[in-house]
This record gives sequence, C-alpha cells and structure tokens, in this order.
Amino acid sequence: MTTATFTVKGMTCGHCVSSVKEEVGEVPGVAGVQVDLATGLMTVESDSPLDAAQIRTAVAEAGYEVADPS
Amino acid sequence: MTTATFTVKGMTCGHCVSSVKEEVGEVPGVAGVQVDLATGLMTVESDSPLDAAQIRTAVAEAGYEVADPS
Repeated sequence: MTTATFTVKGMTCGHCVSSVKEEVGEVPGVAGVQVDLATGLMTVESDSPLDAAQIRTAVAEAGYEVADPS
Repeated sequence: MTTATFTVKGMTCGHCVSSVKEEVGEVPGVAGVQVDLATGLMTVESDSPLDAAQIRTAVAEAGYEVADPS
C-alpha cells in the first residue's frame, strides 16, 4: 500500500470534505482517502503509486485546489 | 403567495446553502426557497403562511440555526 499526502485549499465545511473525498475516491487505483478539514491535509492510499496530476485534477473537479509543495 | 424571511447562521459555502434549501424545501407547503450565503438571508415562499417553527426545525436538521429576530 502506498500513501501520498496533499494539502487541499479552500474547504470550509464538512460538505467540502465530502466532495473532495468523493472525487478523489473515484480516481482509478485509489483505495482510501482521508481529509482533515482544519489543516486541509489529505491522505490518499493506493495499491501502487498514483500520478499526482490525477489527484490534483480530481480535487479541482470538486472545486478546490491542491497547494503547491513548499 | 406568502413570503417569509429568516437569517440562517453557520453556512460557510455553497454546499451549506444547498443543504438548507433541500431541507426547507421539503417542509409541506413550501413553494420556493432562496438563500444568500453572504448575508444568511433566506426567503421562503408558500401559498399560505407557514409555522416558523417548522422552518427552524428544517434548518436545524440541515445542521444550521435560524437567528432570533432582533
């Protein structure tokens, strides 16, 4: 199992979290998604490493943005 | 047509607005619901006057609160 973390910007409530989890959960290969509203931290589990661009696109489709790695 | 206005507290995003509109829209007699996120102003249309308590209950079921009239 592979785990990747992202910071999602713009979520304001639990509904936002649900939207992000739903979209990211639909990316092929994703086995699990956890999102912390307070920090924006999103943890994505998959059997094999995923293309981060696909995750970013899914977050964008939900209406939010992945922060650039600092 | 009767129109009643309420101020809803706690909404942070468009998903919150959708939740409130959905719950209030299910109250018997409600013909239309408009919600402004920025101000919290909710306008409820109905053919005949409604019990405000029912509207408050619907808002609470959505997870928010109607502000007391000032």
